[in-house]
Amino acid sequence: MSDLKRAVKESEGPLAIICGGGSLPFAVADAALRHGRGIVMFALRGFADPGRVEAYPHHWTRLGQYGRFCRIARQEGCQEVVCVGSVVRPAVRHIWPDPAGLLLMSRIVFRGGDNRLLSSIMTAFENDGFRPLGAHEVAPEILLPEGALGGFHPTRAQREDIALGLSVLHAIGPFDVGQAAIVADKHVLAVEGAGGTDEMLAHFADLRRRSRIRSKGGVLIKAPKPGQDRRIDLPAIGPHTVEGAERAGLAGIASIAGATIVAEGERVRQGADRARIFVVGVREHAASSNG
Amino acid sequence: MSDLKRAVKESEGPLAIICGGGSLPFAVADAALRHGRGIVMFALRGFADPGRVEAYPHHWTRLGQYGRFCRIARQEGCQEVVCVGSVVRPAVRHIWPDPAGLLLMSRIVFRGGDNRLLSSIMTAFENDGFRPLGAHEVAPEILLPEGALGGFHPTRAQREDIALGLSVLHAIGPFDVGQAAIVADKHVLAVEGAGGTDEMLAHFADLRRRSRIRSKGGVLIKAPKPGQDRRIDLPAIGPHTVEGAERAGLAGIASIAGATIVAEGERVRQGADRARIFVVGVREHAASSNG
Repeated sequence: MSDLKRAVKESEGPLAIICGGGSLPFAVADAALRHGRGIVMFALRGFADPGRVEAYPHHWTRLGQYGRFCRIARQEGCQEVVCVGSVVRPAVRHIWPDPAGLLLMSRIVFRGGDNRLLSSIMTAFENDGFRPLGAHEVAPEILLPEGALGGFHPTRAQREDIALGLSVLHAIGPFDVGQAAIVADKHVLAVEGAGGTDEMLAHFADLRRRSRIRSKGGVLIKAPKPGQDRRIDLPAIGPHTVEGAERAGLAGIASIAGATIVAEGERVRQGADRARIFVVGVREHAASSNG
Repeated sequence: MSDLKRAVKESEGPLAIICGGGSLPFAVADAALRHGRGIVMFALRGFADPGRVEAYPHHWTRLGQYGRFCRIARQEGCQEVVCVGSVVRPAVRHIWPDPAGLLLMSRIVFRGGDNRLLSSIMTAFENDGFRPLGAHEVAPEILLPEGALGGFHPTRAQREDIALGLSVLHAIGPFDVGQAAIVADKHVLAVEGAGGTDEMLAHFADLRRRSRIRSKGGVLIKAPKPGQDRRIDLPAIGPHTVEGAERAGLAGIASIAGATIVAEGERVRQGADRARIFVVGVREHAASSNG
């Protein structure tokens, strides 16, 4: 029995979807609904798209209102929870904790990178009787498959660049930095920082526009951090990633098959074909067999 | 006998200084002259500062004119050569090779990162009878000493951030990426890419201005790449680095004592004190004892 079927079977209530920014939460919600699963969105104010949230059963909430989440989720009969969508690391003044949120924050604040933050939240959910799921468990069809998504494929040289990118991501994994790098002609040109993938692509496009980077082409490589909790922070590729890669003059995008979420797969495929860039799912072990 | 004294003693002719951008070549030239050493500048057109080059014995040259360099340097009686100053990785169309330069380029182009490029150039100098020196050998007084350069010092927490930064630079060393990272509150926020340190600082300042990075403070950490040829590519700190760090909201700058060049040390110290940030030379082994 698949994780998905088991999840549907064991759960009696609707799925709680904690909804950050971007289109991914809605792709997950739609997939859950297609699988016959009820849902309740907990839309994070300032992050979730208000225009799209309205179409689903939802409650607006603020970052830090953990006690309120637990109360409403129990009232709604939710036993399982999934966190989806972008939440840029917020300033403390943008968090409105209730007492339970404050307690949770006291345990997780100032303990380093995203990995530790996110796994603390997962543990909190479990302690409060909710089963945290990954978006990929709720909607396996949104995972990047192995091979090319559209009509373009990496060359042999680009495959070597992909392997090099996976190796550098593997090397920086323990430091909990970023999930992405740009490689061209066997040269690592950029490593994602705290700004995230879109910012790295925009900065790279700017450097190229100003001739501060003069090589051509290149590949965006993404990968989950080693040891990262895949229930909450899988790398994601969406139409905006393709647009960013195109503006940065890249030849393609590669990420780990089965461990990358593709928001709006059809738009990603069409956008990539239009931009004449490849989007490819690769196997994970390439990371450890190189570099 | 010190490297410097030996260099002065063994050499009969003036020192050839291949002069890229920034103020560092002139700091090295002035130091050599103070040590009683004659010099000839080979000013790279498009990189060297024309206004400042005029004050020294010099020849203008273009990137790639390696045969011309060898001929003139021999005429001038130069036996030793030092390369100083920034040369942003140039487009092939900006290189004007003469026949010897073309031969050299055919050996070094398309072989990966800066390290391999630069060590190929060092080997070429040696093959043609010139002894390549590092700027630090010609002018040891321009090296960053251990400890704080100005009136501000890192806190214990910032020292931990420095150690973390050295560790991440150590981990990415084999990939020949950048020589710098930004760390705040035990979190690696940025890793230098092909654009260099100044671009990383400017991008980081921009991310903070747009609240894409919301933590405060942080340290710029620089270090030589492991295995890098220190005769040509030591990390450098200058007044612009201090200005960039200040604009990025950083609390300080750390780099390896004895393996970092400080251009215009007095201006760096004064600028750092005015900006209330620290500039500190740290020991190298911190990199291997952490992370």
